[in-house]
Amino acid sequence: MGIASRITAPPLLSGSGKGKSVVILGAGLAGMTAAYELNKLGYRVQLLEARRFAGGRCQTARKGFTLTELGGEPQRCEFDEGHYINHGPWRIPLHHQSTLHYTREFAVPLEVMVNDNDHAFVYLENGGPLSRRRLRPAQIKADMRGHVAELLAKSVQDHTLDRKLSEDDQRLLLDYLVHEGQLDSGDLRYKGRSGRGYAVNPGAGMNPGPGLASDPLGFRDLLASHVSNVYSAVQDFPMQNTMFQPVGGMDAIAKAFEKRVGRFIRYQSEVQTIRHGENKVIVGYKDTESGRQHSAVADYCLCAIPLSVLRMIDTDFSGKFKAAVKSVSYAPVGKIGLQMKRRFWEEDEHIYGGHVFTDLKGINTISLPSSQWQKRKGVLLGYYNYQTAAIEISAMTPAERAEFALAAGEKIFPAYRESFEKAFSVAWHRVQYNLGGWAEWSEEARRSAYPVLLEGEGRVLLAGEHLSYLTGWQAGAIESAWQQLARIHERASA
Amino acid sequence: MGIASRITAPPLLSGSGKGKSVVILGAGLAGMTAAYELNKLGYRVQLLEARRFAGGRCQTARKGFTLTELGGEPQRCEFDEGHYINHGPWRIPLHHQSTLHYTREFAVPLEVMVNDNDHAFVYLENGGPLSRRRLRPAQIKADMRGHVAELLAKSVQDHTLDRKLSEDDQRLLLDYLVHEGQLDSGDLRYKGRSGRGYAVNPGAGMNPGPGLASDPLGFRDLLASHVSNVYSAVQDFPMQNTMFQPVGGMDAIAKAFEKRVGRFIRYQSEVQTIRHGENKVIVGYKDTESGRQHSAVADYCLCAIPLSVLRMIDTDFSGKFKAAVKSVSYAPVGKIGLQMKRRFWEEDEHIYGGHVFTDLKGINTISLPSSQWQKRKGVLLGYYNYQTAAIEISAMTPAERAEFALAAGEKIFPAYRESFEKAFSVAWHRVQYNLGGWAEWSEEARRSAYPVLLEGEGRVLLAGEHLSYLTGWQAGAIESAWQQLARIHERASA
Repeated sequence: MGIASRITAPPLLSGSGKGKSVVILGAGLAGMTAAYELNKLGYRVQLLEARRFAGGRCQTARKGFTLTELGGEPQRCEFDEGHYINHGPWRIPLHHQSTLHYTREFAVPLEVMVNDNDHAFVYLENGGPLSRRRLRPAQIKADMRGHVAELLAKSVQDHTLDRKLSEDDQRLLLDYLVHEGQLDSGDLRYKGRSGRGYAVNPGAGMNPGPGLASDPLGFRDLLASHVSNVYSAVQDFPMQNTMFQPVGGMDAIAKAFEKRVGRFIRYQSEVQTIRHGENKVIVGYKDTESGRQHSAVADYCLCAIPLSVLRMIDTDFSGKFKAAVKSVSYAPVGKIGLQMKRRFWEEDEHIYGGHVFTDLKGINTISLPSSQWQKRKGVLLGYYNYQTAAIEISAMTPAERAEFALAAGEKIFPAYRESFEKAFSVAWHRVQYNLGGWAEWSEEARRSAYPVLLEGEGRVLLAGEHLSYLTGWQAGAIESAWQQLARIHERASA
Repeated sequence: MGIASRITAPPLLSGSGKGKSVVILGAGLAGMTAAYELNKLGYRVQLLEARRFAGGRCQTARKGFTLTELGGEPQRCEFDEGHYINHGPWRIPLHHQSTLHYTREFAVPLEVMVNDNDHAFVYLENGGPLSRRRLRPAQIKADMRGHVAELLAKSVQDHTLDRKLSEDDQRLLLDYLVHEGQLDSGDLRYKGRSGRGYAVNPGAGMNPGPGLASDPLGFRDLLASHVSNVYSAVQDFPMQNTMFQPVGGMDAIAKAFEKRVGRFIRYQSEVQTIRHGENKVIVGYKDTESGRQHSAVADYCLCAIPLSVLRMIDTDFSGKFKAAVKSVSYAPVGKIGLQMKRRFWEEDEHIYGGHVFTDLKGINTISLPSSQWQKRKGVLLGYYNYQTAAIEISAMTPAERAEFALAAGEKIFPAYRESFEKAFSVAWHRVQYNLGGWAEWSEEARRSAYPVLLEGEGRVLLAGEHLSYLTGWQAGAIESAWQQLARIHERASA
């Protein structure tokens, strides 16, 4: 089958954790996964969470959600009832069976998140002869693959492949190319196809009747525009259909965990110090409301704090371990949700969910919502930026970010600005207790620091998306927790 | 843009139909669309419907739904609460703005119908070297396009395209091919890619860590199997994402119409005769409960009865018109819904919705449900057959059809038979008042009979999917009704 990873469920562990304790730092998905599974095994678990709510980056901004970035002005989400933006994780790939394990176990209702929509737009400012045109991915894929199929079909016809392929294989290849590219079987030319869309769609009667075919984009224009390179023969792993999202917002997953392990969580508890000895771990933390210092003592500690934050915590880790923590950088990432009073992308452009890709600086992707189909209003994702662009745009005020997003979006959608009502934005590198979207590993750090961090130090083990090859995904946090809780259990049972 | 058909809403008509009457034959989507719009214009409308319920082919089989095919034994659907099969229309393409016009106007909740799933299976009995293997479309597309990209890239390298393309274009083409096929940029070879799936998926820690790549299918095996011809460069119109279905069953659309025009419908009224004069149309019909004959008189008649049925009704149409009615054949079509006690396709195979394509005779497509994700049970479509196969299989009893479907499905899914609970099947060509799935036009009939039927005769006009180039689609029925009601209004206003 060539499709696998049977790591689709928590580790099957025997024995009991009775009488043993684990303090878990951070009530994100890694921390709560560990708390949930360790509690089932009989461990006494305690979760320290700096925020007033659990979930870590698994957040949803809806009416009443507040965020004040470091050094920023307070934002309060004012979207209409029923509307939201998943400003953290927003997609659950079918391959992420670990995340799907819990949505099933906790009966979190899912709906399809349209991640692949050939009827959305691609819009390039620097697309050569195809610049500043709203193109549909279906047009680009149909035409580019059609032209390429024609080119190769003619190479077969001209016998230039005779040394490479047998006569039989050339005949089979020709069959394939005619089908793949919908070539005219007579002259082997690509002349367009229904899949690229019609100039006039088929309908009833004589008019429109069979409709009117549309003309393909020229091969040279496509080549010179580089627009075909926005796509690829198939979506890369794990972006393929079927993609999911929880109904009503991603934080449904966080809340489902919280419902089960909330009683173990101490909120507003900011970890200050970690000390590990031969028999115990002592974690010092501050109650951010009262300002008082407390400490938690346990047999083991599972630290699910992002490395970007952990590096600033006072620990007695070895120099080697501290260096490993510091060797991982965190991604600057920005997102903005824009509430539109009218779903113009559906009504005017017939785009239902999916992503508009663009080279507009700092925008990258405008994503249309996969819920509330055909309703009046909607919240779309106005940009999804990374790296330098994310840092630059994050320096703006929330209002300036919204204006930045509108100025770009209106180049693509005429109704963009006039439909705008409210915005909510986040720059994850400026969010306290995260300081970045996700861990970014260099090859060198994967070789040197990754094994060190995986090993943990003494009675302290680490978990989180950063200790996986699924960085930035909820599945990384969950699967990392699965591995590390199994190691705690192994050690505790030894 | 090259994307169009602005026929996305009912015709804007001025004036009033006050004091004029229209008798509409058949309360399917065409008939109810006409009734709804004509009533808004002020016409007195009356709908005659042979069945006890409205909707025509827009049906959903759920617990309690009964069907007795002509000459067949009665079937009563016994699916569990919340489960159903759309045994008639089951998809609403984004391009079908007419259907979507009414789902919006009537606030029929929609959800995504996964119509394109590269993680489903294709399974060929006659696939040469790839026979009887469950392949994922993603593998096939990735590998075939990868091998083809390699072949063409090497042709560029070998200068065999020098006469066809400039040096610049060849360089751009190479860029594209490397990206499209994810070729090794060094030796230009295709060696697999993440999009085809992994042998071991990436995960946490060191194991699985980065996962393990999978090996591509061989070019020659792919060519010899013809399996790549199951797919094409892009989905043809109108099969692309985003595809919709009403939440809870397609008949939500029928019911939404019925809620608005139900008061005009006379059920169990089987049309027997149509007589049209200079001023009136007289329709004779039988009350199928009492057996009594009645007649309806109106200024105009819109006949939305399938031609397969109309041809057997006693009319005073001209010989030319009658011949036109008879020149259109209707598709034999069969579908079966199988309730499975476990969603093994999700749990075991990680297939969430979409279609399994196969050359198993009489099966064609096994489709997985796009609702109730991750729940315990599900109803899948066990076959979707046409033509000769549909006729052969429709001769079986319902129990035999279920056995036929199981015997095929278990070749693809090991858990198929053991999970089976209940079946419900339909053979549309054996369904009274339909006698076929949809109209099938020959080119000759399109030329000769289509204009005749569109014109209508005297005060009788026809409407339905059969009078469109969207045969078999609800949009065809609706858009045909839009055109014909506009013509009635034009004539009545003249």
